[in-house]
Amino acid sequence: MSSFNHHKYRAFQPIAMPNRQWPDQVITAAPAWCSVDLRDGNQALIDPMTVEQKKQLWGQLVKVGFKEIEVGFPAASQPDFDFVRWLIEQDQIPEDVTIQVLTQARPALIERTFEALVGAKKAVVHLYNSTSTVQREQVFQLDQAGIIDIAVKGTECVKALTKKYPQTEWTLQYSPESFTGTELEFAVEVCDAVVATWQPTPEHKMIVNLPATVEMATPNVYADQIEWFGNHIQQRESIIISLHTHNDRGCGVAAAELGVMAGADRVEGTLLGNGERTGNMDIVTMAMNLYSQGIDPELDFSNIDEVVQVVKACTQLPVHPRHPYAGELVFTAFSGSHQDAIKKCLARRQDDDIWNVAYLPIDPRDLGRDYQEVIRINSQSGKGGIAWILERELGVQLPRWAQIEFSQTVQQTAEQTGAEVSPEQISQLFKTTYIQLEGPYQLAEYQVTRKQTDHVKASLLLQQQTVTVEGIGAGALAAFVNALQQHSGLSIEVLDFAEHALSKGTDSEAVTYVLAKVNEQRILGIAQHQDTMTASLNAILNAVNQQQLAQQVAA
Amino acid sequence: MSSFNHHKYRAFQPIAMPNRQWPDQVITAAPAWCSVDLRDGNQALIDPMTVEQKKQLWGQLVKVGFKEIEVGFPAASQPDFDFVRWLIEQDQIPEDVTIQVLTQARPALIERTFEALVGAKKAVVHLYNSTSTVQREQVFQLDQAGIIDIAVKGTECVKALTKKYPQTEWTLQYSPESFTGTELEFAVEVCDAVVATWQPTPEHKMIVNLPATVEMATPNVYADQIEWFGNHIQQRESIIISLHTHNDRGCGVAAAELGVMAGADRVEGTLLGNGERTGNMDIVTMAMNLYSQGIDPELDFSNIDEVVQVVKACTQLPVHPRHPYAGELVFTAFSGSHQDAIKKCLARRQDDDIWNVAYLPIDPRDLGRDYQEVIRINSQSGKGGIAWILERELGVQLPRWAQIEFSQTVQQTAEQTGAEVSPEQISQLFKTTYIQLEGPYQLAEYQVTRKQTDHVKASLLLQQQTVTVEGIGAGALAAFVNALQQHSGLSIEVLDFAEHALSKGTDSEAVTYVLAKVNEQRILGIAQHQDTMTASLNAILNAVNQQQLAQQVAA
Repeated sequence: MSSFNHHKYRAFQPIAMPNRQWPDQVITAAPAWCSVDLRDGNQALIDPMTVEQKKQLWGQLVKVGFKEIEVGFPAASQPDFDFVRWLIEQDQIPEDVTIQVLTQARPALIERTFEALVGAKKAVVHLYNSTSTVQREQVFQLDQAGIIDIAVKGTECVKALTKKYPQTEWTLQYSPESFTGTELEFAVEVCDAVVATWQPTPEHKMIVNLPATVEMATPNVYADQIEWFGNHIQQRESIIISLHTHNDRGCGVAAAELGVMAGADRVEGTLLGNGERTGNMDIVTMAMNLYSQGIDPELDFSNIDEVVQVVKACTQLPVHPRHPYAGELVFTAFSGSHQDAIKKCLARRQDDDIWNVAYLPIDPRDLGRDYQEVIRINSQSGKGGIAWILERELGVQLPRWAQIEFSQTVQQTAEQTGAEVSPEQISQLFKTTYIQLEGPYQLAEYQVTRKQTDHVKASLLLQQQTVTVEGIGAGALAAFVNALQQHSGLSIEVLDFAEHALSKGTDSEAVTYVLAKVNEQRILGIAQHQDTMTASLNAILNAVNQQQLAQQVAA
Repeated sequence: MSSFNHHKYRAFQPIAMPNRQWPDQVITAAPAWCSVDLRDGNQALIDPMTVEQKKQLWGQLVKVGFKEIEVGFPAASQPDFDFVRWLIEQDQIPEDVTIQVLTQARPALIERTFEALVGAKKAVVHLYNSTSTVQREQVFQLDQAGIIDIAVKGTECVKALTKKYPQTEWTLQYSPESFTGTELEFAVEVCDAVVATWQPTPEHKMIVNLPATVEMATPNVYADQIEWFGNHIQQRESIIISLHTHNDRGCGVAAAELGVMAGADRVEGTLLGNGERTGNMDIVTMAMNLYSQGIDPELDFSNIDEVVQVVKACTQLPVHPRHPYAGELVFTAFSGSHQDAIKKCLARRQDDDIWNVAYLPIDPRDLGRDYQEVIRINSQSGKGGIAWILERELGVQLPRWAQIEFSQTVQQTAEQTGAEVSPEQISQLFKTTYIQLEGPYQLAEYQVTRKQTDHVKASLLLQQQTVTVEGIGAGALAAFVNALQQHSGLSIEVLDFAEHALSKGTDSEAVTYVLAKVNEQRILGIAQHQDTMTASLNAILNAVNQQQLAQQVAA
């Protein structure tokens, strides 16, 4: 018998809501955001972040504008503890940013949590215990009174410790963990007990965070739960209601949006949705959804490529090419009718018009990206794409992002000649654009030394003169970029990188692709060489040379 | 001035719904599904599918149980035309499956569409034209009457052609393209005009498909649009209302779910959400969401790995590790408290109990997957994962899916010894499990011949005897698997594959990883060798040897 059997599941029970208000609401302002990348996100990684990666991600979170950042679970993890100490002792927390740390409602852990926070100007202590029926019955084997007791004792313990450390401005956050699996009446009862113990005021509120630890129903049901909770909790005016959704049913963003319509004040999530299992709610998507409606998201994603690069580097996870707002394919148009409509809308558009372009819900330039028409060569053949031709003719396997960049070049030629571009022309165009390009810079010799960091010293030919450049960085590529920047005064950033052995021809040459931002211009650099390191350095030079030649033409 | 400026956008206007019904509804049965993988999905690929890939994907769609499949836009694409002809002429369409083809509402294209369908037993002709304000004003420069005229003339043309080809059972589907950007009153007016022209009956309905060509607002607004449309369209009893959502705001699944609550009968989408820009609504997620509520999804995803493999092979797109139900990380638990809760729930569970396990909304085995605890070694170090140790000690860089597999082995050792597993033990365990494993099969010699397909002939040592195996396949690996299967009678399927040069040591050896299903058991096979092909074949043998040795132990 197949194990595929829906009878082993039961439907989530709907909430009786005779006077439901949220479907008539519209979001008109951004909620308070809290990033949990450094805690919930980090906890779900096979290799948790190193301290260096945490520092890098922290810097990015501050840069995009988060004012509340959950930085770890210091009582459970020494690296988290050390990171919190670094933030405080090295004075890394801007005046307008508050750090938050998670702790279970157990006295020993709470004490250790406060030790981690000694000296912080302000902090949120995030206390949680599990409240759902399945956790009570199967995991903790406690009745409702026992669960309330854990929450209240934990709150008392936090309260006592805040008296011991009065120099810090304290805020309590309480989460009935697995809220979506908890009877609503009981969730309110637990939270009322915590609130009564903590005694928040309208001037000094506490946060009640309502996690969809597991997404269990359609997102409207979560909104019902939030509205019901807000209608029944005591001292609503002294409480900030916070949402924390996961994405088990693919609706984490929808649930948070409908939850804000249902009265929540604050939303927890991560950049691009990293987190346990299917991930947390993606703050980039929700913030940009607000932005696209004319609402200030109070986060700045104008350099989305940088956000993507930092998140990838810190989590070792990919970003899907179709990820809303951030994926490499989301501002492309393949079909002729889409391209035609976009072209007409853009042509009629004045600079200060309200954005209203078919098939593009948002202006890609707002995120530092470009709209890309992708033409297909020999569309009749079904397998006549540019990538396929280059593989067949030259043995190069362009990564997808490189295909998109190169297709722009092919398209310009097609538009200039007004004719279909032949496979031979595509190969030739590829060679003249990348491989045979003679730019001002040529690589003569180099030396790479790796100790703590990498150090590169290279001799370049620049207009028949030999110049020596030197730089350091994490990795030879970074060191070489650093060296080039120092020498040339250009700003150079490597956005993407790929390398493979050439699949055609008898030599075992490597081909290297870099997507570089040279003085804010995205350029694909390509080089091939028998030595992979040489190919890599030459690919960077190739991008720089393209930028330099384009400038000469423009001048 | 930064170009990040929300003032250039306007909020979507909410729908006035004084008597809104959908938030009180619960989905209790699967909608009619229509796969648009071979049309909308294909149209958004850099390299459109080859005919071979289309056949493979078609086979998978039929296998999981789709009864309606949009197979192309034959009037706009010769490969699509040829594929439709192949389906009909080679009698590839099961009795209970209906094909659907897309066409613009232009007479020449409609005629060509019918030529593609000659001889089909039944078919849906999917007619569309753009109706939104932005398309009317900026792209077509037509008023509302002009747009209605296109739709009605197109319908008349289809109707006339159905008379010309009476041997086929015809259904009309009409889409007011860009429905979400169309004034609701006008959308109803266009559709009423089409319905009046076509004259459907309750016995022979037509389909009205309402696309969120671009997702423009929160998903509740789409549900409002659907409910409003259903309340105002004439001859509702003669119409199947169909949804077609895209994912620009990350809420494509939510919109389709709320749209079904709002009265829709049918849902179009793709496997794992491939499609224009951010993709179409993902039918796997929506179907499994229903399944997890005890509702028969009427699609069978019990072999989700196969679905993932076919979609990846046909689209050349990755599936994100956190993709709901299908990603490689979605059934893992990293945190100790999650692992503990899951363990307790599973231990108490009886086989015929309703599924109720903390942190696992669904039983992974239903999808042919396993729940995976991932332990971290040296969790105190912050960078002490198994992968990091293996890289440092042996120079191997395990792909993520291989890390997860191997971590099970490490965990078993940890549980058996009851102690923390040292880095040396991990290296040793890796070597004994994979590299030094002496199984019944050993590779002696082989020959690979590539013509149209690959042909492999190999000599194996099996208990001191030399046996010769032979097989063919697309690629040497597939040919070798085929040869092994024929010889051994085992079922062998390669789920994932990776290879890299060893980063440690003086030899330039390659390491190959395969994730194989050998007689329904998932096994990670690994081998290293100076020759990459030899490493690949040995990695497969390594997986088979592990399975054989485990059987000997069990016997």
